[in-house]
Amino acid sequence: MMGGDFAPLEAVKGLQLYLESVSGTATVFCIGRETEVQPLLQQFNIPQERIKMVHAEEVIGYHEHPTKALKEKQQSSISIGFHLLSTGKIDAFISAGNTGAMLVGTMFTIKVVEGILRPSIATIIPKLNGGTGLLLDVGLNADCKPEQLNQFAVLGSLYAKNILNIENPRVCLLNVGEEEGKGNILAQATYPLLKENTHINFAGNIEGRDLIKDNYDVIVCDGFTGNVILKLAESIYDIAVARELQNDKYFHRFHYENYGGTPVLGVSKPVIIGHGISNDKAFKNMIELAEKMIASNFCDKIKGNF
Amino acid sequence: MMGGDFAPLEAVKGLQLYLESVSGTATVFCIGRETEVQPLLQQFNIPQERIKMVHAEEVIGYHEHPTKALKEKQQSSISIGFHLLSTGKIDAFISAGNTGAMLVGTMFTIKVVEGILRPSIATIIPKLNGGTGLLLDVGLNADCKPEQLNQFAVLGSLYAKNILNIENPRVCLLNVGEEEGKGNILAQATYPLLKENTHINFAGNIEGRDLIKDNYDVIVCDGFTGNVILKLAESIYDIAVARELQNDKYFHRFHYENYGGTPVLGVSKPVIIGHGISNDKAFKNMIELAEKMIASNFCDKIKGNF
Repeated sequence: MMGGDFAPLEAVKGLQLYLESVSGTATVFCIGRETEVQPLLQQFNIPQERIKMVHAEEVIGYHEHPTKALKEKQQSSISIGFHLLSTGKIDAFISAGNTGAMLVGTMFTIKVVEGILRPSIATIIPKLNGGTGLLLDVGLNADCKPEQLNQFAVLGSLYAKNILNIENPRVCLLNVGEEEGKGNILAQATYPLLKENTHINFAGNIEGRDLIKDNYDVIVCDGFTGNVILKLAESIYDIAVARELQNDKYFHRFHYENYGGTPVLGVSKPVIIGHGISNDKAFKNMIELAEKMIASNFCDKIKGNF
Repeated sequence: MMGGDFAPLEAVKGLQLYLESVSGTATVFCIGRETEVQPLLQQFNIPQERIKMVHAEEVIGYHEHPTKALKEKQQSSISIGFHLLSTGKIDAFISAGNTGAMLVGTMFTIKVVEGILRPSIATIIPKLNGGTGLLLDVGLNADCKPEQLNQFAVLGSLYAKNILNIENPRVCLLNVGEEEGKGNILAQATYPLLKENTHINFAGNIEGRDLIKDNYDVIVCDGFTGNVILKLAESIYDIAVARELQNDKYFHRFHYENYGGTPVLGVSKPVIIGHGISNDKAFKNMIELAEKMIASNFCDKIKGNF
């Protein structure tokens, strides 16, 4: 409850939206400072039977060093959340707090699925035709080896299938040309691995101009390029706002605040990391995503593929 | 005259636009098949005294292998153009033809400026405030060393100053975070070089979301990332067309067909490579850019900095 620029207000409002909109039976553990959270839960009429308040005295700030903060603030909402997740008291953990602390906590408490070199984070790309593309890695791995990109392809494919409900997702390699043999050393070495990977439906190279088109479902790239693209895509919404087009049906889909968070792909339990600027809708979406990941046994499906 | 999807028509129309709009005294050498070009020159009333028709029997197609084509088609308009440029008969060479052949021709005929590891190509980024940013490399060097990025910074800075008329251009490093020490291995190793480079006004790291903002003038990155960004930026215009916003003042600036071509930076004479889809306006702009590069002694200024 303590993560995000508008914590805990937006988290509580998001919880209200979630509880109003679904018939699901999930119990939501609200981890945070009871004196700050409890009055808001009452103010927004959150039914007591649907939630469980878990007091956490400490809060990890945005500018704290992740490893140091997690070590020193064991009573922080992030530390307690990971403890509850690792001991099986909760099935998924969501936070819009310190991203570094969320990642470090994930790696050290929840563990990477055996066989996976490095976990990854992905982003949604709004396609012009109304569909949705998935791009990964978007920042967890600035330098990548071909074998990692090959694994991201499987992780992205599983996510597209199980969470985005895309049948037989087309996986593409981000590149500077369509033909095999194009690209930097990484792309050139990754192409043959993807081509021979029987766990995915490889659809070849894809260029920057194709991100908004419907000739792919999943794109893999290194986390440096992916992060630049993610932030550039976010700025498309900034352009829309500047041109007073934020209500345009398509541009509105670049408003990433609405999407909620990104799951850490390749770890043994669902962890979802939200934007600092997460609003109520983002929190609602993150809870729904967590529910979907649990219901589809997503993490177990990953284990079965590595 | 034979390069571009609509050759030689758009080239002739562009020439007409140029001759109508400027008081410059440039003589434009029109290199191409006389039987195809001459009737168009007459049809569009191109004054004979402002041009010089140079017959070239052969044409290098878009899908020909650059090195092979240049070797075998010595009577092609591209081969003849490079010959005229290298022998000093013309001062700049422009073509919207086979990009590979243009690059190979540049490297082997015109030569790289001594001290420069690799030339580069740049693109214009339209900023929200009406200003213009410069991004390089956008595809000539898929894999880069820190020393190359450091040289691109100088090339971009000189271009911004002499051609875009930006005083003391702020040069930034494309990265995944603002703080020093962020990024992939390349960015981490490039930062200290840029910081110590006295030929540029280094303004630190910059992220994908800042491309449309006014906190930089020149951005350097490897040619893989730059090419992906260039093509993604081009697709912003595709979005505008799909949303029927192509006449919006800002989105219109992403219509890269209008810009003309990209100069090859770091070579000893002006070479400008156009898009295959170049229209008349693009050809006009390319001629004006060539004029500006000649008038400002741009290539000599590069020589003085390396």
